[in-house]
Amino acid sequence: MANTVKIRVPGTTANCGPGFDAVGIACTLYNDLELTLSDEDGISLAITGEGAEFIPADDSNVVIKAIKMILNKTGHTAKGIKLTMVNKIPLARGLGSSAAAIVGGLVGANELTGRHFSQEDILAMATTIEGHPDNVAPAIFGGITVSIMDSGIANYLRFLPPADFSMVVVIPEFNLSTKAARKVLPETVPFTDAVFNVSRAALLIGALCTGELKLLSHALQDRLHQPYREKLIPGMAQVLSAARQAGALGAVLSGAGPCLLAFTDGNADKIGKAMVKAFRIHKVKASYQLLQIDQQGAVII
Amino acid sequence: MANTVKIRVPGTTANCGPGFDAVGIACTLYNDLELTLSDEDGISLAITGEGAEFIPADDSNVVIKAIKMILNKTGHTAKGIKLTMVNKIPLARGLGSSAAAIVGGLVGANELTGRHFSQEDILAMATTIEGHPDNVAPAIFGGITVSIMDSGIANYLRFLPPADFSMVVVIPEFNLSTKAARKVLPETVPFTDAVFNVSRAALLIGALCTGELKLLSHALQDRLHQPYREKLIPGMAQVLSAARQAGALGAVLSGAGPCLLAFTDGNADKIGKAMVKAFRIHKVKASYQLLQIDQQGAVII
Repeated sequence: MANTVKIRVPGTTANCGPGFDAVGIACTLYNDLELTLSDEDGISLAITGEGAEFIPADDSNVVIKAIKMILNKTGHTAKGIKLTMVNKIPLARGLGSSAAAIVGGLVGANELTGRHFSQEDILAMATTIEGHPDNVAPAIFGGITVSIMDSGIANYLRFLPPADFSMVVVIPEFNLSTKAARKVLPETVPFTDAVFNVSRAALLIGALCTGELKLLSHALQDRLHQPYREKLIPGMAQVLSAARQAGALGAVLSGAGPCLLAFTDGNADKIGKAMVKAFRIHKVKASYQLLQIDQQGAVII
Repeated sequence: MANTVKIRVPGTTANCGPGFDAVGIACTLYNDLELTLSDEDGISLAITGEGAEFIPADDSNVVIKAIKMILNKTGHTAKGIKLTMVNKIPLARGLGSSAAAIVGGLVGANELTGRHFSQEDILAMATTIEGHPDNVAPAIFGGITVSIMDSGIANYLRFLPPADFSMVVVIPEFNLSTKAARKVLPETVPFTDAVFNVSRAALLIGALCTGELKLLSHALQDRLHQPYREKLIPGMAQVLSAARQAGALGAVLSGAGPCLLAFTDGNADKIGKAMVKAFRIHKVKASYQLLQIDQQGAVII
């Protein structure tokens, strides 16, 4: 007996400047998964789209890990897992491809095994696999999320801003592992830098909650991670600066990079073109996409 | 010719746990000022209420500094300043007595000299005198504020939460200068502590903006200043813990202390009594007051 479900999961951008490891936004950029559980032995995995050639098609794949976590917890007896993925979220670029894979696997397997788990349960499981909740929370809930770990448990706030803005994501043609991007971070930071980010993170969430977008130029500033990661991304400072000069409300590193993200309430194409051009000066090929906030998170389609 | 105005200015609590130097809340605890500008030479200052015996009655008084700043900027020719203050905000306890004095002086003098300055101008002047905007912003605007300094200019967000909560402030019978409380802060902090506070500050403002009060128990946590200041306030950890055990949503140091502040949506008296009792065990006499959010900020009365 076979049992099939289709899931759509949004890409996500985390950190958003000052909100390191806490702030995440779901974006209108999706991976589609089709999952079948059956009695036929074996795992089959077919991937098309972004990063297809790099994704492992065996047990080390995080989607398979996620599906097996649900099967184990429910004691489900399926022997066969058949998965088809159509990926639009670029791999290892800072747009939450790993979180989307994990959330897709969990949501799909939960659906096929009797919906034993709530969205909060899915968050806990996804955080266990991913290691931190900042991308998985918006991938599950959509919108903007602030997530924190307290005594090993992920807690989150999810909201939608009352004002319209777009995001311009510029995707350079190289990838960067989160592990490598974490390695360059320091063990201690100046007290003044910590205080700087605290004030900006508070202002960022306040500005997004209230729709006071004019504050974003201040609220997107960061001193905790971006200055250390600049050396990993040729032209990063210039591309961010080009976005601001072209009219962006602010511009930041998306997640651990290398994608760069500008926030705007207009002029999106002008900003995207200026950012791509600034990358080109540093011999980096890049393209841009216009994204909105995804409001739904992972859904069964 | 004499010219008189009365001003009421709220006390304020800053930091609110993780939001060091950024988050402030105006409280229903007021200083009243009556200011007269005249042609008669000389400064006269009469203070009753909190801290009357400690407040300098000459040019070194911040209210006089504030008034003179407005007189200088407007080229006003008043020779005489007569000021009567009735203070309910305790002095040097972390409830913004200095910010209230400065804001009262500026707002009063502005009113008497033709209202040349906007509230934003007043914020800029008050920040210059006080050195930082986190108390003066809520004293001016009321409500909850997030304020930051960017290139020497104070920027702020002001909002009111959509959910009701009260604050219980416990006032120990000793004072603590902000200068002394700043001296114990470190020059560098662990990266993980900075990230901890960033996530809590973001969650705090999100929780207050959206009214998700149940998140406050996580969102009021701090690792940047309170752990270092505990040694200045006997029993601090125990008093904060007593507040939580008595049902508070969370409890923090108010500003640079020594007042301690609990947030609650009920049981306020029980919480206040538990906190006072915990202080008493550490030989500290204290009293408590129930406060709400002041929504108006400084007003002419």
